[in-house]
Amino acid sequence: MKTTFLDACRCKPVEETPVWLMRQAGRYLPQYMAVRSRCTFLQLCKTPELAAEVTIQPVDFLGVDAAILFSDILTPVEPMGMRLDFVPGPVFENPVGSMSDVKRLRIPHIEQDLPYVIETIKILRRELDGKVPLIGFGGAPFTLACYMVEGKGSKDFARTKRMMYSAPDVFTALMEKVTTMSIEYLNAQIRGGAQCIQIFDTWGGMLSPADYAGYVLPHTSRLINGLDRVNTPVIHFVKGSAGMLDVVKRAGGDVIGLDWHLDLGRARDIIGGSMGVQGNLDPTVLYAPESVIEREVRRILDENAGRPGHIFNLGHGILPDIPPENARFMVDCVHRLSRKKSLAERG
Amino acid sequence: MKTTFLDACRCKPVEETPVWLMRQAGRYLPQYMAVRSRCTFLQLCKTPELAAEVTIQPVDFLGVDAAILFSDILTPVEPMGMRLDFVPGPVFENPVGSMSDVKRLRIPHIEQDLPYVIETIKILRRELDGKVPLIGFGGAPFTLACYMVEGKGSKDFARTKRMMYSAPDVFTALMEKVTTMSIEYLNAQIRGGAQCIQIFDTWGGMLSPADYAGYVLPHTSRLINGLDRVNTPVIHFVKGSAGMLDVVKRAGGDVIGLDWHLDLGRARDIIGGSMGVQGNLDPTVLYAPESVIEREVRRILDENAGRPGHIFNLGHGILPDIPPENARFMVDCVHRLSRKKSLAERG
Repeated sequence: MKTTFLDACRCKPVEETPVWLMRQAGRYLPQYMAVRSRCTFLQLCKTPELAAEVTIQPVDFLGVDAAILFSDILTPVEPMGMRLDFVPGPVFENPVGSMSDVKRLRIPHIEQDLPYVIETIKILRRELDGKVPLIGFGGAPFTLACYMVEGKGSKDFARTKRMMYSAPDVFTALMEKVTTMSIEYLNAQIRGGAQCIQIFDTWGGMLSPADYAGYVLPHTSRLINGLDRVNTPVIHFVKGSAGMLDVVKRAGGDVIGLDWHLDLGRARDIIGGSMGVQGNLDPTVLYAPESVIEREVRRILDENAGRPGHIFNLGHGILPDIPPENARFMVDCVHRLSRKKSLAERG
Repeated sequence: MKTTFLDACRCKPVEETPVWLMRQAGRYLPQYMAVRSRCTFLQLCKTPELAAEVTIQPVDFLGVDAAILFSDILTPVEPMGMRLDFVPGPVFENPVGSMSDVKRLRIPHIEQDLPYVIETIKILRRELDGKVPLIGFGGAPFTLACYMVEGKGSKDFARTKRMMYSAPDVFTALMEKVTTMSIEYLNAQIRGGAQCIQIFDTWGGMLSPADYAGYVLPHTSRLINGLDRVNTPVIHFVKGSAGMLDVVKRAGGDVIGLDWHLDLGRARDIIGGSMGVQGNLDPTVLYAPESVIEREVRRILDENAGRPGHIFNLGHGILPDIPPENARFMVDCVHRLSRKKSLAERG
């Protein structure tokens, strides 16, 4: 197996910088659209053979160093008793607003309620056959709670923040239940064969550092510490956290995911040498000509300055109208430039 | 005149921390809605008596320490040759896509093309009668260019970034023209009587620090240095800049505006003692009960730790469904707690 990705997660030195792309299995790939045209998004998530097929597509096409399970962060929330639909964005028909709503939520039995997720992981481990490691994933408690309270995406998450400030007991009860579910869900992924876990906190960065520390950190920290991490590194990505990496770091884990709103070198200085970082190319750079893509990849590798424990990635998911060959060129640049760099440093 | 606001802009010590709210003249106020119901948004911007009326409303109701001209950042872009409509968000019917589009743009003669802006300022200086100072404002070149290229708001500003990366000559020509216009526009506001200028860069934080430094900073810097700042301090607010304050600082000006995504004390450490800061309460805190509002105001004042040069504000515009009395309570908290603090420190 190509081990650069898992080695980098453990801050071990590697021959070339490993790279994958958030949302690498997705709409920008014609081969994905071909599968997707035959079913709904939810059917795709729930049909192990199809979910495995689209998971592998970018590994073959892009040459990335890790596969990531195709699923949605809201998948495990549905069997808690939330009615989920995609129109096309995710919508819950029965958002959570009160303590009795929280009490009604149940903790799913993962293997029974979400058998397709575990089955997809098993197929993938077989089909990847040790080629590259498989990343499992889940939403961070705060991001899941946001969707459950708002019922859908939001600009300022007014309902969630109102609950947080005005009914902290309800908010805390919800966060605790979601965290417990997430621990069971992600440990089931690890038992099924996931070799790394990424936690996505898409909305944690909507909060001030003080509110993040008070309302979110204890729950994410419990989640990360509740995972069976002996052989499975954990990547923690909080979008919009450039101004509070020191707080995010306290949640634990092995690697901190970075968006593109700060210098990667400075991020490493804040986070310290014992944790890795993942990132952090602006996804829109993939619209640019090859010369600009190469320049930006080089800049980020230079900012890292050869420190072990860097996984290259975008700072957010790949956009749906990116030319696939630009994504492939970027992956190639990361490998080529980092290998040259590591040779030069040894030489 | 109450001078705390202008004194704080110059980092002079003050008896109590001055405070105003971005978008303080707006939809959350019933008295604003009463005026707005009689005309369109553009008519309101272009009718000096009405624009002045809604500018003064929050000064009377909230007790803030500064008034800010009621207008829109796109107002001066229209006479450059861009057809503007609000539906209800701003839309340009003829977005900029090529060098010939840029060449067609003209630099307005402010007093002739935008007489209503200058007239509004003159009415306001008369009616405010020295009660509180009047802030004029404009959009930063990058934010204006984004709107001109996209034709409307956007999630990822793909058209603008494509132009920036793929046609840097067109992008630069556009930025230069917008900057020249902005210098003339804001100096006309100063001549008309504006006592402070705030530059809003709503979208600068969409860029990586490296791209901001390369593509935006030279233009914003030229704008700030082109203003007649002898008696008129300049506040520069780049939303989403928590991870690149050291870069933003290089653009110059007297005060840096902060959103709520970083600790105000840390921001001051990065920016240094020679510039002031403005911010940085999460706007959604105004949904919270009074006890939480007071706690959060106190936290921010504590983070500032009595350093001169702090103007209290929200980290972004006030939201349209905030109860007006909560905003007034917040303003009162800032005055009461900072005055107590400053007494305690002297004592």
